[in-house]
Amino acid sequence: MAFFDLSPAELASYAPDLDEPADFDEFWTRTFDEHGAGPLDFTCEPVETHLTVLDAFEISWRGFDGHRVYGWLALPNGVDGPLPAVVQYTGYSMGRGMPFENIQFAVGGYAQFVIDARGQGWRNGSTKLGSEDPGLRTSGSVPGFMTAGVLNAEGYYYRRLFVDAVRLAEAAAGHDRVDAGRLFVTGGSQGGAMALAVAGLAQLRGVQIAGCAPEVPFMCHFTRAIGLTDAYPYKEVADYLASYPQRQRQVMRTLSYFDGMSMAARATMPGLFSVGLMDQITPPSTVYAAYHHYAGEKAIEVYPFNGHEGGTTYQLKQIHHWLAELLGER
Amino acid sequence: MAFFDLSPAELASYAPDLDEPADFDEFWTRTFDEHGAGPLDFTCEPVETHLTVLDAFEISWRGFDGHRVYGWLALPNGVDGPLPAVVQYTGYSMGRGMPFENIQFAVGGYAQFVIDARGQGWRNGSTKLGSEDPGLRTSGSVPGFMTAGVLNAEGYYYRRLFVDAVRLAEAAAGHDRVDAGRLFVTGGSQGGAMALAVAGLAQLRGVQIAGCAPEVPFMCHFTRAIGLTDAYPYKEVADYLASYPQRQRQVMRTLSYFDGMSMAARATMPGLFSVGLMDQITPPSTVYAAYHHYAGEKAIEVYPFNGHEGGTTYQLKQIHHWLAELLGER
Amino acid sequence: MAFFDLSPAELASYAPDLDEPADFDEFWTRTFDEHGAGPLDFTCEPVETHLTVLDAFEISWRGFDGHRVYGWLALPNGVDGPLPAVVQYTGYSMGRGMPFENIQFAVGGYAQFVIDARGQGWRNGSTKLGSEDPGLRTSGSVPGFMTAGVLNAEGYYYRRLFVDAVRLAEAAAGHDRVDAGRLFVTGGSQGGAMALAVAGLAQLRGVQIAGCAPEVPFMCHFTRAIGLTDAYPYKEVADYLASYPQRQRQVMRTLSYFDGMSMAARATMPGLFSVGLMDQITPPSTVYAAYHHYAGEKAIEVYPFNGHEGGTTYQLKQIHHWLAELLGER
Amino acid sequence: MAFFDLSPAELASYAPDLDEPADFDEFWTRTFDEHGAGPLDFTCEPVETHLTVLDAFEISWRGFDGHRVYGWLALPNGVDGPLPAVVQYTGYSMGRGMPFENIQFAVGGYAQFVIDARGQGWRNGSTKLGSEDPGLRTSGSVPGFMTAGVLNAEGYYYRRLFVDAVRLAEAAAGHDRVDAGRLFVTGGSQGGAMALAVAGLAQLRGVQIAGCAPEVPFMCHFTRAIGLTDAYPYKEVADYLASYPQRQRQVMRTLSYFDGMSMAARATMPGLFSVGLMDQITPPSTVYAAYHHYAGEKAIEVYPFNGHEGGTTYQLKQIHHWLAELLGER
Amino acid sequence: MAFFDLSPAELASYAPDLDEPADFDEFWTRTFDEHGAGPLDFTCEPVETHLTVLDAFEISWRGFDGHRVYGWLALPNGVDGPLPAVVQYTGYSMGRGMPFENIQFAVGGYAQFVIDARGQGWRNGSTKLGSEDPGLRTSGSVPGFMTAGVLNAEGYYYRRLFVDAVRLAEAAAGHDRVDAGRLFVTGGSQGGAMALAVAGLAQLRGVQIAGCAPEVPFMCHFTRAIGLTDAYPYKEVADYLASYPQRQRQVMRTLSYFDGMSMAARATMPGLFSVGLMDQITPPSTVYAAYHHYAGEKAIEVYPFNGHEGGTTYQLKQIHHWLAELLGER
Amino acid sequence: MAFFDLSPAELASYAPDLDEPADFDEFWTRTFDEHGAGPLDFTCEPVETHLTVLDAFEISWRGFDGHRVYGWLALPNGVDGPLPAVVQYTGYSMGRGMPFENIQFAVGGYAQFVIDARGQGWRNGSTKLGSEDPGLRTSGSVPGFMTAGVLNAEGYYYRRLFVDAVRLAEAAAGHDRVDAGRLFVTGGSQGGAMALAVAGLAQLRGVQIAGCAPEVPFMCHFTRAIGLTDAYPYKEVADYLASYPQRQRQVMRTLSYFDGMSMAARATMPGLFSVGLMDQITPPSTVYAAYHHYAGEKAIEVYPFNGHEGGTTYQLKQIHHWLAELLGER
Repeated sequence: MAFFDLSPAELASYAPDLDEPADFDEFWTRTFDEHGAGPLDFTCEPVETHLTVLDAFEISWRGFDGHRVYGWLALPNGVDGPLPAVVQYTGYSMGRGMPFENIQFAVGGYAQFVIDARGQGWRNGSTKLGSEDPGLRTSGSVPGFMTAGVLNAEGYYYRRLFVDAVRLAEAAAGHDRVDAGRLFVTGGSQGGAMALAVAGLAQLRGVQIAGCAPEVPFMCHFTRAIGLTDAYPYKEVADYLASYPQRQRQVMRTLSYFDGMSMAARATMPGLFSVGLMDQITPPSTVYAAYHHYAGEKAIEVYPFNGHEGGTTYQLKQIHHWLAELLGER
Repeated sequence: MAFFDLSPAELASYAPDLDEPADFDEFWTRTFDEHGAGPLDFTCEPVETHLTVLDAFEISWRGFDGHRVYGWLALPNGVDGPLPAVVQYTGYSMGRGMPFENIQFAVGGYAQFVIDARGQGWRNGSTKLGSEDPGLRTSGSVPGFMTAGVLNAEGYYYRRLFVDAVRLAEAAAGHDRVDAGRLFVTGGSQGGAMALAVAGLAQLRGVQIAGCAPEVPFMCHFTRAIGLTDAYPYKEVADYLASYPQRQRQVMRTLSYFDGMSMAARATMPGLFSVGLMDQITPPSTVYAAYHHYAGEKAIEVYPFNGHEGGTTYQLKQIHHWLAELLGER
Repeated sequence: MAFFDLSPAELASYAPDLDEPADFDEFWTRTFDEHGAGPLDFTCEPVETHLTVLDAFEISWRGFDGHRVYGWLALPNGVDGPLPAVVQYTGYSMGRGMPFENIQFAVGGYAQFVIDARGQGWRNGSTKLGSEDPGLRTSGSVPGFMTAGVLNAEGYYYRRLFVDAVRLAEAAAGHDRVDAGRLFVTGGSQGGAMALAVAGLAQLRGVQIAGCAPEVPFMCHFTRAIGLTDAYPYKEVADYLASYPQRQRQVMRTLSYFDGMSMAARATMPGLFSVGLMDQITPPSTVYAAYHHYAGEKAIEVYPFNGHEGGTTYQLKQIHHWLAELLGER
Repeated sequence: MAFFDLSPAELASYAPDLDEPADFDEFWTRTFDEHGAGPLDFTCEPVETHLTVLDAFEISWRGFDGHRVYGWLALPNGVDGPLPAVVQYTGYSMGRGMPFENIQFAVGGYAQFVIDARGQGWRNGSTKLGSEDPGLRTSGSVPGFMTAGVLNAEGYYYRRLFVDAVRLAEAAAGHDRVDAGRLFVTGGSQGGAMALAVAGLAQLRGVQIAGCAPEVPFMCHFTRAIGLTDAYPYKEVADYLASYPQRQRQVMRTLSYFDGMSMAARATMPGLFSVGLMDQITPPSTVYAAYHHYAGEKAIEVYPFNGHEGGTTYQLKQIHHWLAELLGER
Repeated sequence: MAFFDLSPAELASYAPDLDEPADFDEFWTRTFDEHGAGPLDFTCEPVETHLTVLDAFEISWRGFDGHRVYGWLALPNGVDGPLPAVVQYTGYSMGRGMPFENIQFAVGGYAQFVIDARGQGWRNGSTKLGSEDPGLRTSGSVPGFMTAGVLNAEGYYYRRLFVDAVRLAEAAAGHDRVDAGRLFVTGGSQGGAMALAVAGLAQLRGVQIAGCAPEVPFMCHFTRAIGLTDAYPYKEVADYLASYPQRQRQVMRTLSYFDGMSMAARATMPGLFSVGLMDQITPPSTVYAAYHHYAGEKAIEVYPFNGHEGGTTYQLKQIHHWLAELLGER
Repeated sequence: MAFFDLSPAELASYAPDLDEPADFDEFWTRTFDEHGAGPLDFTCEPVETHLTVLDAFEISWRGFDGHRVYGWLALPNGVDGPLPAVVQYTGYSMGRGMPFENIQFAVGGYAQFVIDARGQGWRNGSTKLGSEDPGLRTSGSVPGFMTAGVLNAEGYYYRRLFVDAVRLAEAAAGHDRVDAGRLFVTGGSQGGAMALAVAGLAQLRGVQIAGCAPEVPFMCHFTRAIGLTDAYPYKEVADYLASYPQRQRQVMRTLSYFDGMSMAARATMPGLFSVGLMDQITPPSTVYAAYHHYAGEKAIEVYPFNGHEGGTTYQLKQIHHWLAELLGER
């Protein structure tokens, strides 16, 4: 895909105003108080895999409204004591997959937690059933999750998912093999959105995040993103508004409670972003918009000729390097 | 689209065996007994529109498990006495739309009922909220409804929708402006699937259908349809099985309770089908498969060079002609 | 389709200069004098349809150079006295279709006239033969009508079509069931172009139009439209100029006699436009260009996330509301 | 494009029955008597070009109903006496182009005549105006020429074009620089259809063709071709029948007067065909169908991995070789 | 992609004759004697990565004509003694990538070797330069490698690559951390082609392969594959033959020395294949053709609704299970 | 394709700074000294064709490092004395084709030389083998030639090709049938890039070029072109940098030695450019960038509605006219 968004020079200084409702913080405080404050009821069962250098576990915990959410945990074996940990959030459409699938941090010596995003998982298979989303979708919503319950923030799908995500970080922080002071969050695209949300909201659950590494994060700067690109999943919202033009204001208001710009503005730990300048799915200006609001110490890796794949293995290498530096190892 | 399915000669005699479970009838009897036997609780409120030659009403009734389902009713004004009625079922993705949108039978002198298919409606707008589907979708299901709850027949989305559809026919039959002996069902694509389902199952609710006119019906002969075409929505099932290949048998078993071939085999009233020989969405062999099993007196209009649009206005003309003949008017 | 044209703010003030030849008015006066002044020779024969609440008629009249042009008329039955009337002009490629197809105004109590655009009708079928176009196409013209006879304004296809369109309004105004003081014109895309042309030129035939409601009108601001979009039918002109680059000036001069901006500038009755901000076929800036020149009292309905479908049923509702207001009913 | 038609072995023996009306010969005899028997009124004017080794002329003659048709003639300069001649017919959408454009036979020592197909020429430019087609197109016909006047053989566009084509051969045979006993016809796609038509019908004008070299000929075996492929221009007919399904028999009857199989069956001079086995535009089985009916001595060059481009320069080389052999030069 | 190849029943028994030249074995014997018999000159240098549970090494060896070829080796750390080993061959376009990228067998306790296919690597990046291919490409060859040097078997690119692949197996067998009796080969697509080639030819270098697991192998049954599908890279050969039709026999002869069917027929160790029935890139019939000729004990995993991705993580699980069984661990 | 680049007004003044390394001239001087200074060893053998008005020859000469390069020569026959000559350079992917294929200048009285670009020729066939490129491609390079050896200017493919191109001009200038003072160069796209390179560099071999006519030239203003368009071949560079983002500076430095802007700035003979304003392959701003730097007397033909085909036969006519004027014939 050719360049289609702002120029590199414009991006470097692209810092639009936050687009958030006055009761943003109150909304999330209430959300966690009312729907995310119960016991975690964490479970962790070993699963048999072909892995010999890692130990794999199926984990579960209580997410939004106490719904049970699943995931995986991989631990480097033969290592004693508390480990630094990485919580891995997944991209749109992806489930947790197989227990041997997301191990890129575990093989580097981290406890790696993986979420099974509720209701998702149609792009990658698993031998286990996934996390269910009992929440209503709202008639008229476009297939997928971007407009599921979008008529108000209370019922929006991502309210439930973000609570699940924070509570996984909470569970990770409390795990006996984890050093709670060295807990990192990461993920690409929707995974980046969740990582940002956890970075911004985890304090509401008293969880401390040591660093946040969102790759090509999704769900940032909605008012610009919707209509800027034809690519899904942002296009789901445009499709919805094509059928229900009278609901534009209402929908945009809902989305404003979930904007990565606002999450970034509440994140104070170090951050490492990545962006592909040919990315149609999470256009570079939307990523930079969140980056510029990010409140912690920060850096961004720019991949000029890449699309939504971003920096792929190059970025993975960067993240490992950045983690090592934060941990004082380099 | 070029021809891609069986030749006209092969289609004319294409009558594959039914692919139905032994407990098909028991399943549906139980379904209606347990989930579709409560009071209809029918409502019918006039709505203001620009229509001057018709009267328009918002209707609602209790569908599966008593969930409230919505729709429209249009009546030719200035006409006394009970009317023949047509229940119109909608295609995949369509909601009820506007009250002045589906009036093609009302303008011909019929009471026309339109369903708002639960959870759908993302392709056409409405000024009203739609019917909700509180049923679970099942994690891993592909966006859309074809694999929503597909792991077992009890939880499959179409179980709920088909009950809603039958109960609308039941409501129509009981409406004071309707002559219950002259109640017809029709619809295109998914609407044709619903029409066939009602034709085959309405007797379980003691409702008599006087004729069934499915246009290019969907959901017929699943075992052939899945993989025969790249077109959605059948492709949703193939996508699902690409991610979950181990569930093929389980999914196919679920679908076998909803196959239009089996519904057709239980329908004894006159039937008028249509088929487009270049139809990739509901391939002609799948339509003929249902047609050949249809147990009532029947005819099929063939549109050799048409795709899923089928006969469009030509077929509407045919249906009106066929209705008039059945009503003894021609 | 993502946004590709001017921003909403730019559109709101986008008022390019008219691009019209000095002899624009003379050209059209001469056109009507020489090719559109003969007897209308109107015919109106009832046709049998399934419609019970409307009466349907096949109509015909003399268009350009006395060529016979066909159409439909639908009247609400059981109503006495002269009716307000809507003349419906059709989109590119569409013929008049079936007599029961375009009745959206008749069901609201209007006499609805529908044109069968000469030579068109390849997208929708009819059981009747259509209006013929005996005019020459000019060798080298791209399939379709945009470059048929484009080498000079005298021989251009749309000169003939616009005369046909005005003469239908003239026939409607003279119909004994029509109240000539309440005659409206509407249509989408090419139908919007015809509606604008009639609004601007009908006075040349002494016909008074009470209101004009062009939806996403085509043929506005040609000098911007050609090359702004890859979508047909504007692209037909670009294709032609790719093969005949030496004729650019000549072609653009021809088109300047048919530009909707100039038609709008001559229309003084109330107008209601619609525009889709993602419309590639009639890009929003070209619609706004005509809107800003529209000389009557005016309003425009904006559909930000819609393409060429514009406002669909929402806009139909708006038009009915606007008609009712003009008629003093609301 | 992958293989999609019959296998090579099936093609080698694919000889479907002719599909021609009983009055085929009578139709064409009458056509030439009534519409193609007037004076040729041939003109031949030198045109200035950059060519130094050839002399170029603009030619014109009277085609169907005496309409003036244009073309080019190129003669090798510095050669005395009558020359063998090749009449070159053009593909669909092509006009005659520039006088220096079609010279591939002239540079080999032939008098080369090129037709400007009436009304066509939208794919290649010219500095001259082209041949006009004053014939009616018939309302509802799909843009292009395949359905122009298709409701009956008398008014079909190709009736006019085929008469033009034969009369060009007649003019060539009578040209003083041409040896009438060494007159060849060729062309690709629609040009192949014209070449076959001239080979089959030229005797009706007393013209003798010494050889016919159709490349990937179009308009052969219509009943199989329509619907076998999605490619235009055959698809124009399928599009038409999608809008007018009730006219299938009528349209197919018209086409049967123009089928290359029937033309081939009337051609007795040597023939050299070419075919691309991946050709979606003129599928191989339709080419073979004509080839097998070809009544003269014949050969076919098969290009297994080529599409509609056929053998390109390889086939040009073959045709030159074949011409030389027929002329006794090899 | 819909089903397009033989039916499951036909595939189950699809065993076409081998299409191999009489001197196939002589060719390969000569190839290894003359171009693959020199010293391996193996190098193995640790590389720094973030991996803590594996040790990573850059390796290199002498391939065809002594050219230096690169790759990676990953060893589970903290394990003593010789290990079972898996040699991983890569898909078309892929290089070795990063040292932490292909570790799916190393994390299961195997020494995992990865090849950097000469000249490839344009789809995945690396921080190291890759293996060069100094061999000639031959003018006219289509971009990519399928027709590089295809005019004769001696100069064909894959002759060089297959020698490189066998020599990597040879190097692996001789590695001091490897148990040479437990050496396996695997790979997907082109990697499957290499795995089959090594399975069939390794004996020429005295190397014993304990098992071969080709996933959706490429380069099998060329005479059917070329033209059966439009997908690249097979399409490269069809593109070449479209430009050089006169070379078909010559090209097909070259390819016959590299056909996976012939390689399979020479492989006697256990084999585990996989196939996707919607695979356009390596169509199922071509995979089955190789499978049916495979001379060792064998099994095939069938993924009916998958394309070229085949069984993804499911198949990885299967391969691990199959390896464990062969190693007597289950 | 719609307009996508700068507006006509912006293009008319678009003159970006040169982007060339300080040692540009030194690089090329060294290149010709070390790799392009040996004997030409020119051969010229008549080939048998069907041409009767031209004589055709296969030619060859020593290009870069003395590699033998092939081509064709066509001479108008029956003409005495030295002729003006045109050297024709070919577009990307094209070989020399057939000897009767590129004769558009020979038929106008010129000696026409055609290059067979080393290693290319996959889009058009030939009965002869082509020029080989023994140079290395560099592992990781994207299929095609744009990134072949791109890691440094010394090894870049186009260094070899440009030397070949200059040496053909040198050979033409020395041919006994050629008037060395009337030697022109031309070509489209990559052929335009070669023509510009020869115009800029031929003086290094003491060859005088009388005029340069690049059509829609490729390889101009690389820093803008890469990423401005999705079209190949520029996209090959973007693809490469997507896989190897760390090499951006290195790659851009290599390309800067080959930029048509710099070549143009060194060309002092008259020049005639052409540009298509909808050209995605060689976007108009990149063509204008070279045009504005062109140091000789110059003109540019603008085709507003054309893409990469540019002016086709119109431009050929222009070039002939321009040649004639330069030769004092008009």
